[in-house]
Amino acid sequence: MKRKFFITLAIITSSIFIASAQNPTLETIFSRKSVRTYTDQPVSVEDLMMLVKAGMAAPTGMNRQPWEFFIIQDKALMASLADKIPYARMLKEAQAAIVVIGNPEKSIYWYLDCSAAAQNILLAAESIGLGAVWTAGYPFEDRMDIISKAVGIPKPFLPLCLIPIGYPKGEQIPKNKWDESKVHINKW
Amino acid sequence: MKRKFFITLAIITSSIFIASAQNPTLETIFSRKSVRTYTDQPVSVEDLMMLVKAGMAAPTGMNRQPWEFFIIQDKALMASLADKIPYARMLKEAQAAIVVIGNPEKSIYWYLDCSAAAQNILLAAESIGLGAVWTAGYPFEDRMDIISKAVGIPKPFLPLCLIPIGYPKGEQIPKNKWDESKVHINKW
Repeated sequence: MKRKFFITLAIITSSIFIASAQNPTLETIFSRKSVRTYTDQPVSVEDLMMLVKAGMAAPTGMNRQPWEFFIIQDKALMASLADKIPYARMLKEAQAAIVVIGNPEKSIYWYLDCSAAAQNILLAAESIGLGAVWTAGYPFEDRMDIISKAVGIPKPFLPLCLIPIGYPKGEQIPKNKWDESKVHINKW
Repeated sequence: MKRKFFITLAIITSSIFIASAQNPTLETIFSRKSVRTYTDQPVSVEDLMMLVKAGMAAPTGMNRQPWEFFIIQDKALMASLADKIPYARMLKEAQAAIVVIGNPEKSIYWYLDCSAAAQNILLAAESIGLGAVWTAGYPFEDRMDIISKAVGIPKPFLPLCLIPIGYPKGEQIPKNKWDESKVHINKW
């Protein structure tokens, strides 16, 4: 009787983990949202490095890897960027930021490769409980200039985006963007 | 004695699932690779729809969602595209393909949003055991033209990329692109 109970317990426990782990990657993809408010909890440099590692696992055209990554932890710098860059006010609250930077001399379409890298960073952040949001650099000359000067990005490198990062404050709900009318199967 | 054994069994079983599910999203990000050879196993339309759903969960600037998705299952069409598009020979073997398409009238930087969507599709494919690879449309006028004409993409829409999909044939190993010299912490 007891034996049966514990076998059952083992089976149930396992299947809960199988179920919740059924496809955690899809779960992350669907639960990722743009997080713009953060708690005071610091973000470790190990976690930031992990995010950059995730970024560098993205595919690149002809495997040129035309990217660089800049981790900002300096709060004064983030606050000053928050004042200068449009739509980047959330940088004042952020614990850190990652700038995804491209090398246009390595690839003419560096910004596509860097976008895939940025998306990896956003998903990796979501997967470890961090909140993040893509704020634009490229293709806006003025914003790229502000970021490059403030951070000290040398030529010919260009910032695709600046990603503020922190632990999400309050409940954050992903947008449901599913729209079946945008799917064409075998025929437009 | 037996009771203890089954408790232990329950604990071990659970912890295996906890461990293997520790961060499956990061695992997917790091194990994703460009898969160019596929088995004969068909890919279900349900799986293809799931990939498109993952694509539509990507972030877009100002939430404009400037995208459309075209699922190709027609093998004759894929074979003819394989002959016409550079670096797309693998389409002959693929079971399906997804074209990620942008609307430049909805957003001037549609190709960034669509790149994030394409990366979601590649990761979602990896997570369900499918193989996929990004083949370029944009920014190449000639390739965009070939894809648009073959598939019947109306104006003003433009194809960012065409992603052949199938179950991977043989062992496929991800590239290790990690390069610490490309990470700058607080200072270039």
